Amino acid sequence: MASPSSDLDRERRKCTFNVAELTDIINGGREKTERRQYLESLVLNEPIFNYDDYYFLSREEKYSDAVKKTVRLVQVLKQHNIEDPEDYQTLLKYVLNLNLPIALHNSMFRPTIRDQGTDEQRKKWLPLANDYKIIGTYAQTELGHGTFIRGLETTSTYDPKREEFVLNTPTLTATKWWPGCLGKTSTHAVVMAQLYIKNQCYGIHSFIIQLRSLKDHSPMPGVTVGDIGNKVGLETNDNGFLAMDNVRIPRENMLMRHAQVYPDGTYRKPANSKLVYGTMVLLRATVVSESATNLSKAATIAIRYSCVRRQTEAKPGELEPQIIDYVTQQHKLVPQLATAYAFAWIARYMMSTYHALHADIESGHLGALQELHGISSGLKAFTAEMSVSGIEVCRRACGGHGFSAASGLVSMYKDRLPSCTYEGENTVLYLQTARFLLKCFRQPSITPSSMSYIQVKPLPGARWGVKSPEDLMKPILLVEAFEHRAQRTIKSAAQFLESQISQGLDTSEAMNRSGIEFVRCAKAHCYYFVTRNFFQSTALLKCSKEIKESLLTLGVVFALNGIADNSGEFLEDCFITGTQMEFVRERILYCYKQLRPNLVGLVDAFAFADQSLNSALGAYDGDVYNRLYNWAKRAPLNKTDVHSSYHKYLKPILKSKI
Amino acid sequence: MASPSSDLDRERRKCTFNVAELTDIINGGREKTERRQYLESLVLNEPIFNYDDYYFLSREEKYSDAVKKTVRLVQVLKQHNIEDPEDYQTLLKYVLNLNLPIALHNSMFRPTIRDQGTDEQRKKWLPLANDYKIIGTYAQTELGHGTFIRGLETTSTYDPKREEFVLNTPTLTATKWWPGCLGKTSTHAVVMAQLYIKNQCYGIHSFIIQLRSLKDHSPMPGVTVGDIGNKVGLETNDNGFLAMDNVRIPRENMLMRHAQVYPDGTYRKPANSKLVYGTMVLLRATVVSESATNLSKAATIAIRYSCVRRQTEAKPGELEPQIIDYVTQQHKLVPQLATAYAFAWIARYMMSTYHALHADIESGHLGALQELHGISSGLKAFTAEMSVSGIEVCRRACGGHGFSAASGLVSMYKDRLPSCTYEGENTVLYLQTARFLLKCFRQPSITPSSMSYIQVKPLPGARWGVKSPEDLMKPILLVEAFEHRAQRTIKSAAQFLESQISQGLDTSEAMNRSGIEFVRCAKAHCYYFVTRNFFQSTALLKCSKEIKESLLTLGVVFALNGIADNSGEFLEDCFITGTQMEFVRERILYCYKQLRPNLVGLVDAFAFADQSLNSALGAYDGDVYNRLYNWAKRAPLNKTDVHSSYHKYLKPILKSKI
Repeated sequence: MASPSSDLDRERRKCTFNVAELTDIINGGREKTERRQYLESLVLNEPIFNYDDYYFLSREEKYSDAVKKTVRLVQVLKQHNIEDPEDYQTLLKYVLNLNLPIALHNSMFRPTIRDQGTDEQRKKWLPLANDYKIIGTYAQTELGHGTFIRGLETTSTYDPKREEFVLNTPTLTATKWWPGCLGKTSTHAVVMAQLYIKNQCYGIHSFIIQLRSLKDHSPMPGVTVGDIGNKVGLETNDNGFLAMDNVRIPRENMLMRHAQVYPDGTYRKPANSKLVYGTMVLLRATVVSESATNLSKAATIAIRYSCVRRQTEAKPGELEPQIIDYVTQQHKLVPQLATAYAFAWIARYMMSTYHALHADIESGHLGALQELHGISSGLKAFTAEMSVSGIEVCRRACGGHGFSAASGLVSMYKDRLPSCTYEGENTVLYLQTARFLLKCFRQPSITPSSMSYIQVKPLPGARWGVKSPEDLMKPILLVEAFEHRAQRTIKSAAQFLESQISQGLDTSEAMNRSGIEFVRCAKAHCYYFVTRNFFQSTALLKCSKEIKESLLTLGVVFALNGIADNSGEFLEDCFITGTQMEFVRERILYCYKQLRPNLVGLVDAFAFADQSLNSALGAYDGDVYNRLYNWAKRAPLNKTDVHSSYHKYLKPILKSKI
Repeated sequence: MASPSSDLDRERRKCTFNVAELTDIINGGREKTERRQYLESLVLNEPIFNYDDYYFLSREEKYSDAVKKTVRLVQVLKQHNIEDPEDYQTLLKYVLNLNLPIALHNSMFRPTIRDQGTDEQRKKWLPLANDYKIIGTYAQTELGHGTFIRGLETTSTYDPKREEFVLNTPTLTATKWWPGCLGKTSTHAVVMAQLYIKNQCYGIHSFIIQLRSLKDHSPMPGVTVGDIGNKVGLETNDNGFLAMDNVRIPRENMLMRHAQVYPDGTYRKPANSKLVYGTMVLLRATVVSESATNLSKAATIAIRYSCVRRQTEAKPGELEPQIIDYVTQQHKLVPQLATAYAFAWIARYMMSTYHALHADIESGHLGALQELHGISSGLKAFTAEMSVSGIEVCRRACGGHGFSAASGLVSMYKDRLPSCTYEGENTVLYLQTARFLLKCFRQPSITPSSMSYIQVKPLPGARWGVKSPEDLMKPILLVEAFEHRAQRTIKSAAQFLESQISQGLDTSEAMNRSGIEFVRCAKAHCYYFVTRNFFQSTALLKCSKEIKESLLTLGVVFALNGIADNSGEFLEDCFITGTQMEFVRERILYCYKQLRPNLVGLVDAFAFADQSLNSALGAYDGDVYNRLYNWAKRAPLNKTDVHSSYHKYLKPILKSKI
C-alpha cells in the first residue's frame, strides 16, 4: 500500500495553479483571507473548541457542550471587540461546527427588534440583547401550522383597562413548536400571535414575551416551555415548545414600528404588510451561503479520501488504483465540486443583491422586495436540496467508511437536512418562485432586469447551436440551453394553468392541479440563473490563466451534468438532439480528465482547517486509517473490554443448559 | 380543525375494497396472515418489547436495550419451538424494529458453517450455535479493503508441526473493520484470511476463531476486539474491529467442505470457487425484501399523516384541506406507495427463484448461480437505492414533524442507508449486473430465459405505440417502453466499450471509461424487470375487481413515473415523442385522482402494528398531535425545568455586569 501522505503530496505537486491565489478568490480578496485567518486563530487554539470526541456525545451532552462553547464564543467576541456581523458569519462558516443554542438570538431576535421595533423599543431591548443580558428567540411555527402563517392560533388579546396584552394558547395545536433555542436556553421570545381588540381579530403581530426568570432561569408564571425531543440533526439546538396561559405583557411589548395599538385600543395598521419579510429574505440568503460552504466541505473530505483509498488491482501485481481514478467515482464527486463552486458564486451574488436592494426596500420601494423574494425563495430551495443530496453523494462515495461518524459527513448531512424545510418548505418556495415567474411572463412591466429573459418567447422550432463536442466548452451555448429550457417550461406551466381554468376549475384548484408544472419551471429557472451567474462571475475574475481554465471547466461540468441529469427537458421539444446528447456525455468524461490533476488543489483552496472538517477521512495529511483506528478506540462502548450488557443479559443464555 | 380520527375514519369509509383481502395477498395467503398474527401476538404483548422511549436512548443504551430484547427473543423462540427461518424473518420484518446484535449469527455465521463446513464441522458447531451457547459473526471486510476481496491482508499460516493455523493481522489496514456484532457481542467468528502453506499463498479461505472466553467474555489471548464507534444508523449493532496477533486454531477450524488442508500441509482446491457465493445471493434477496417492507412502512406513516394534517385554506373561511389533496404532495407519496408494492412483488419473485435454483446450484449446475448473481446484484442495488430515497421523500413530505425522531422515519432512514453499501456496494453491483447483461447480449447461448429480451435487437426507427392518454393504462405498452430502453442502453453500452477498445485502451481501462454507461444500462434493466414482474404478478392474482384495479393503477403510476423521471432515456432516440410525454404527465395526475379514495386502504393493508411503526405521525388512529406532545414531554432534556448547563455556563454571562 502506498503511504497516504505521499498520495496527497503527489496530487499537490500535480496541481497547475497557485492554491493560495484561488483561496483569496473564494474568500473575496487577500484582506478577507487574512481576516478569516485571524478569526480562526482566536478560536482554533482554544481547547474549549476541541471537537475530537464530539461524535461520541449523547443528545444531552451535545446540547450542554454547545452551551459551553457558545458562552466562550461570546466572551471571545467581547474580548476582541468583534462586532461586525460578517465576522460572526465567518466564524460560524469556517470554524464552529455546530448550530448554536443562541443561533436565533442573533439571526432573528435582534434583527426583528431592529426592523420592527420603534426607536424606544430598540433603545430598551437592543443593548440588553447585544450584551447577552437576555437571550431571545423567534416563535412563529405551531404544532398545527407552519407554512400557513395566517392559520396560527396563538392569541394576544388587548386589555385596555390594564393596558396589557394577554397571551394564550387556546388549543393543543396552537402550541409553539420547533422554534430554535426555545426549549431550555432563551429567556425571551418574539412571539407571533393573532391580535384581538374588543373581540375583533387584526391578524398576526409580534410580541416580546419573557419566558424565563432572569434570577434563576425558571419558567415565568403561565409559561410552559420545553425541548421538543430528539430529531434528525441540530442536536446542539434546543428546538422547543411553548404554551401560554393568560400571560400578561405591557402594551409596549408589541413591536410597533409598522402597526400600532394605542392605549385606548385604537388600532393603526401598517403602511405595508410586506415590510416584515426583509429578515426572512436575509435568512434565505444565508441558507444559500451555508449550502455552498457545507457542500465544499463534503467535497473536500470525499476527494481527499478518494485519493488515499486504493481498491481493486486493475492488472495483477500492480498497485491498486486510487479510487478517484474510477470514472464512476469521478462522476459522483466532480459534479459536487462544480456545484460547490457554482453555489459559492451565487451566494455572493445574493448577498450583494440583498444589500444593494435593502436600502431601496427601507425607503418603501417594494418592487425590489418582490424581486428579492422571487429570487431568494427558489434559490434557497434549489441550493438546499442540491447541497444536501450532494453531501449524501459524497458520503456514499466514501463507501463503508462514509457511515462512520468519524467521516464528518454523517453529522454534516443531518445538520443540513432541516435546511430543506426551515425558512420555507422547499416545495412551497418553488411554488412561490413559479408564481413570480408567471407574473413576469404575463406582465413585462413588472419584470426586473435580471429576469428579462422571460419576455423572450422561445421559438417552437428552436434548435441548439452545438455542432461538435468542442462547442460544449462555450459558455454562451450552455447558458442558451438552460435559458431555452426555462422559457419553455415557464410558458408550458402558464398554458397548463390556463387549460385547467378553461376546463372550469376555480383558480385555487387550477393552481393546485398545476403544482407539478410550477415546480418544474421554478427548478429550470434556478438552474439557468445559477449557471449564467457562474460563467458571468468567472469571466470577470482577475486571476491566472490556469485558475480561470479550471473554474470554467468546472462550470462546464455543472452545466453538462445539469443537461444530462434532466435530459428529457431538453429533448422533449427537440431543442437538443440525440447526437448532441452523445456529445454531452463524451464531453463530461473529457472534463473529468482535464480536471483530474487539479482536484485536490481545487478542494485545498477552500482552506478548511482540519478541526472544522472534523473528519478522519478528509484531514489535510490524508492519514485516514490511523485516525479511524485511534478514534474508534476511544468510543464509549470500548471503555471496558466486556460490556455491562454481557453480565446483565447475555451471560445467562450463553451459560444455560442445552 | 377536524378531528384527526374522524379524518381517517372518513378515508376508511371511502375505500372501495376489502382491506383484509389485500392483506392476505400481501402476506401470501390467509394462512400466512394468521401465522403472522400469531407471531406478532407472542412479542407485541411483552413489555420488554416496548419501544415508547426508544428514540431518546443514547448509542450505548440502544445497544444494551437491543441485547436485552435479543435475549428475550431467543427465549420466546425456544419456548414456542419456533425454528422455521421464515418465522424468524416474519418477526424481524413485522415486529422487531431493530438490527439485532446477533443478526450475523443467524444470517451469516450459521449459514456459512452449514454451506462450507464438512459434516463433522456441522455436527460440532451447529448445535452450539443453534442453542446460542456460542454467538458468531462473519469477519470479511478490513480497514483497507471491502469490495476487493482478493486484496484482504489477514493471514492464516499453516503450521504442520502442531497441525494448527496461525492467524495474524500484519498491517493496520488488515484490521477487520465493520463486521456486525463483532465488537462486544460475538464469542466466535468465521474469519476470511489469506491461506499460507509453506510460504505459498492459496488465496482467501474461511476459519473459525474464538474471540471471547466462554467463561467471562474477555477477549482471547492475541485477540484485540472492539466497537468501531458511532455511525449513521444500526446503532443497536456493535459493528466491530478485530486484530489478531499469532492466534492459533486447530487445523479442523478451517471450513473444509470445498477446499481442504491435510495434516501434512497438502492443499486440495475446491471443485468450484463460486460455490461459496450462495449465502451472499440469499442476503441480497433479503435486502430486496427489507427494502420493500421499510418503504411500505414509510408510505403508511406519510400517507396517514397527510390525511390528518391540514394546511392553508383554499377559500377564506373554509376548512383547510388535508395536505394529501395537494397534487404536489400526491406526486411525492403515491409513487412511493407504488414502488413499495412493486418491490414487494419482486422480493417474492427473488425469494422463490432463489429457492427454485438453490437445488440446481447445490448439484453443481452453475448457470443458475450466474443467473441468480446477475439478477440479484442489480436488484439489490436498485431496490436499496430507491427504498432509501423513497423513505426520505416520505420523511420530507411530513414537513417539520418529519424531522422529529417521533416520526419513526428518522431512524428508519438511518437504519436503511447502510443497505446501499453492505452486501455489495451499489455501484459495484450495478457494474456486475451490466457485465452479465453484456455477456448475454453477446452470447445468446448463456442467456437465461428470464433475460431473453436482450436478444431482440431494438430497431433504430422504433416508435412507441401509444396514441392517446388512455393507451397508457395498457401494461403491454408500458412494459414495451422499458424493454426498448433497456435494449437500447445495453446495446449502446456494448458499443461504447468497443469504441474505447478500438481507440487502443486496454480492457480494464476501457471498462473503467465505460462505467457510467454500464450503470445506466443496469438501472434500465432493473426498472424493466421490476415493471414487467409487477404487471405479470398482478395479472395472476385471484382477487376482487376493485383490488386488481387499484393494484394495476399503482403499476401504471410506477411505470409512468419511471418514464417521467428518466424521460431523456426514452426521448433520446425518439422512441417517445414530446406529445406522448404530455400524455404521460396528464395520465399521472389522472391516476392520482383514481387512487385518492383508496390511499389509506392501500397502506392499511400492509397491516403494520402501531408498535412496529413506532410513529407519532403514522399510528392507526391518527392522533398525531397528542402523541407528539406527550412524547416530547418525556424527552431527557425536559427532566428538569432548568437545565444543568444554565448553572454551569449560561448564568455567568446573563448575570455579568454590562
